[in-house]
Amino acid sequence: MRLDAVLARIDSDLPAAIDRLFELLRLPSISTDPAYAADCDRAADWLVRDLASIGIDASKRTTPGHPMVVGHVPGDGPHVLFYGHYDVQPVDPLALWHRDPFDPAIEDTPKGRVIRARGASDDKGQLMTFVEACRAWKAVHGTLPCRLTFLFEGEEESGSPSLVPFLKDNADELRADLALICDTGLFESRAPAVITMLRGLLGEELTITGPDKDLHSGMYGGAAMNPIRVLTRILGGLHDDAGRCVVPGFYDGVPELPDDIAAQWQALNFDHAAFLGDVGLSQLAGEQGRSALEMLWSRPTAEINGIWGGYTGDGFKTVLPSRASAKVSFRLVGQQDPHAIRDAFRAWVTAQLPPDCQVSFTGHGASPASHIDTGHAAFEAARTVLAEEWGVPAAFAGCGGSIPIAGYFKTHLGMDAMLVGWGKDDDQIHSPNEKYDVESFHKGIRSWARILAALSD
Amino acid sequence: MRLDAVLARIDSDLPAAIDRLFELLRLPSISTDPAYAADCDRAADWLVRDLASIGIDASKRTTPGHPMVVGHVPGDGPHVLFYGHYDVQPVDPLALWHRDPFDPAIEDTPKGRVIRARGASDDKGQLMTFVEACRAWKAVHGTLPCRLTFLFEGEEESGSPSLVPFLKDNADELRADLALICDTGLFESRAPAVITMLRGLLGEELTITGPDKDLHSGMYGGAAMNPIRVLTRILGGLHDDAGRCVVPGFYDGVPELPDDIAAQWQALNFDHAAFLGDVGLSQLAGEQGRSALEMLWSRPTAEINGIWGGYTGDGFKTVLPSRASAKVSFRLVGQQDPHAIRDAFRAWVTAQLPPDCQVSFTGHGASPASHIDTGHAAFEAARTVLAEEWGVPAAFAGCGGSIPIAGYFKTHLGMDAMLVGWGKDDDQIHSPNEKYDVESFHKGIRSWARILAALSD
Repeated sequence: MRLDAVLARIDSDLPAAIDRLFELLRLPSISTDPAYAADCDRAADWLVRDLASIGIDASKRTTPGHPMVVGHVPGDGPHVLFYGHYDVQPVDPLALWHRDPFDPAIEDTPKGRVIRARGASDDKGQLMTFVEACRAWKAVHGTLPCRLTFLFEGEEESGSPSLVPFLKDNADELRADLALICDTGLFESRAPAVITMLRGLLGEELTITGPDKDLHSGMYGGAAMNPIRVLTRILGGLHDDAGRCVVPGFYDGVPELPDDIAAQWQALNFDHAAFLGDVGLSQLAGEQGRSALEMLWSRPTAEINGIWGGYTGDGFKTVLPSRASAKVSFRLVGQQDPHAIRDAFRAWVTAQLPPDCQVSFTGHGASPASHIDTGHAAFEAARTVLAEEWGVPAAFAGCGGSIPIAGYFKTHLGMDAMLVGWGKDDDQIHSPNEKYDVESFHKGIRSWARILAALSD
Repeated sequence: MRLDAVLARIDSDLPAAIDRLFELLRLPSISTDPAYAADCDRAADWLVRDLASIGIDASKRTTPGHPMVVGHVPGDGPHVLFYGHYDVQPVDPLALWHRDPFDPAIEDTPKGRVIRARGASDDKGQLMTFVEACRAWKAVHGTLPCRLTFLFEGEEESGSPSLVPFLKDNADELRADLALICDTGLFESRAPAVITMLRGLLGEELTITGPDKDLHSGMYGGAAMNPIRVLTRILGGLHDDAGRCVVPGFYDGVPELPDDIAAQWQALNFDHAAFLGDVGLSQLAGEQGRSALEMLWSRPTAEINGIWGGYTGDGFKTVLPSRASAKVSFRLVGQQDPHAIRDAFRAWVTAQLPPDCQVSFTGHGASPASHIDTGHAAFEAARTVLAEEWGVPAAFAGCGGSIPIAGYFKTHLGMDAMLVGWGKDDDQIHSPNEKYDVESFHKGIRSWARILAALSD
């Protein structure tokens, strides 16, 4: 009964909760671009103030990068740590947005009402579902149901360089019985999902240099090495005809899916045609002979995320450029070693360089895959109450994205993590016109209230 | 003797000639970028005024693109048309310039004094060598030595879309006994060269589209098609291991070098190691089994001049982009048909598209190679007087660049063209820090005075 009053309060307070989220969404906290550092700082300040408004003792904590926000609620019973991130992805190509990414609005769409803004889903909207659940609980009961620690990061979208040192330096303060992470989605945009498997991520940027200056292709074309040609030849060979990455040793440590998990995933009846159809595609483009859920959750990938070189403006310029660059990322699974793969990739590229070409590399983060131990009683409890909120069974699912924080919590704080979230497949996170369904926000807040009640029963 | 006075006048007037060139160089007449259309127009106006200052009846003539400038000097004897272009290449990457590209200056360098600016060599400085020769002749003798027509174009760096229609519409006005074109260079930066062979140019821009929006590689990576991967795979296969372009039919119409020309070129003793060494390279990167001069003058090429897709800013973004693009150009020789090669290239790309990908193409000019008939007596006369000015024999040479105007003059006006110019290999045309040696400018003006004298003797 103490839950029902909280749920009622959540329902009546929804418009105010959306207004609060809009304040946070208006701050362009793009962590990867130094031009937005002050906005990241402002977002951290906003969270400190918002937690304080619920009576939570919170503070901004400096790091070599963007600040952390840490808050504490003392109490009896189980101690949970909630993690979310207040930074967001860049917004380019800006021309494809149909409104200012940092001017949030409610829009009516054929699929329902949505909150449109960069970060609406990833991760400001998700983060605030937990904060709003706490606010409602506090408003109704005057206290929170259990001991809580809040940890908000501002570098998740840029590889979390300050996170592990911060966890190590503040281990005693941050260690709890269980971590809660809200940065994932619903299964097929409809069923609550508890994530038990996350891919790791390795980012590499490479620049191939040929001539020491840009050349005119009329004067030098045919005799001088063109680094774009070298780059396309090398990266064009990154996959074999069966869709497998050809970097030597890449598949070391990649396990076959255990039969029980394969059976669970089979039972989910994933509709990959609908999943691809939503983005204008019809064919699975990954490794031949793998199911769609394997491609997305349990198989590693190699992807070119950006490429540039030469003249890219309007019109034409017959230049032989001095250099050409690309950003390449690898999603990792099982026991794949990010550092070994980085070394192997660099060696593989370097071995293919023709005479007169050099290559330089810049690393952009390296995190292994995470596997969640679902033994903690909270996992089954969450599955039960999530089914009540959403009206369908909750799944134990994999996740193609990389949220290395779950692994860091285990490694550095000895703490299991439960990842649940309310995003939908069409939220367009990391893309123009990101949105978060009002339904995700509303039922997400209610879901967290139910989970808090279950954890503290 | 009438020549000696002109040469003396050229020597004494050089500082004023440089000042005049600087005025023209200050106009950022980048023809390929619509943002600079007004500057192209201003450059045409400047040329009209400058010709008028020598008493030449000149006018700006509108086209669907940038204007032409046409001037006439009536007279007896042979009638020659002089052609140059007042438009320039884009200046990016701007950060690599060590001064404003449109703020010209004289700089002292270890190799001598240079005029530093975009267009200093290509083609404003070269164009003005002829104008200044006429100015000196007029100042000394009160007239010009023969009947002259001037034609200055403003679209040479963007494919000359208005040129052929203009030639056709004004054929009677423009037809002369011989065309003179000043848009080429010295052989090995030291010997005057009369160009007898020019490569053609075909430009193509292609965009490959996969998903209908940018995707998050965590959510879709491994299952969804990545258009950068498709683009690199296709373009990475544009050449075979021997450096030959694999587009079917590409070598149709490519002749082997006639023995007599091969022998002439052999006698030039081209130092390809020095040529490449100037730009930080050491190895010939073209078709195996071909000499350096063949690669540069008589063999066709396929080059990727620009490529872009996905996230190219600072930091990292794990995007699967919706599209990826490239600009590709082909230098053409012999009887290669630009339109047939365009069709073959498009078919070759399209045939390699995987399911779910589309490609769109934009053409950027298509001109065949030119071969100059050197039968006109002016060719031998020019070789003789150029050797006098430069102190070394003049060469009949090829040119890797594409100056289709020579072919257009032949086709549409029935007029042979003589191409001579004073550029050096290190002028960095089309690159940052373009320059033109003061020696090129000065001796270029003197060279034209000598040629005018020889033509009108």
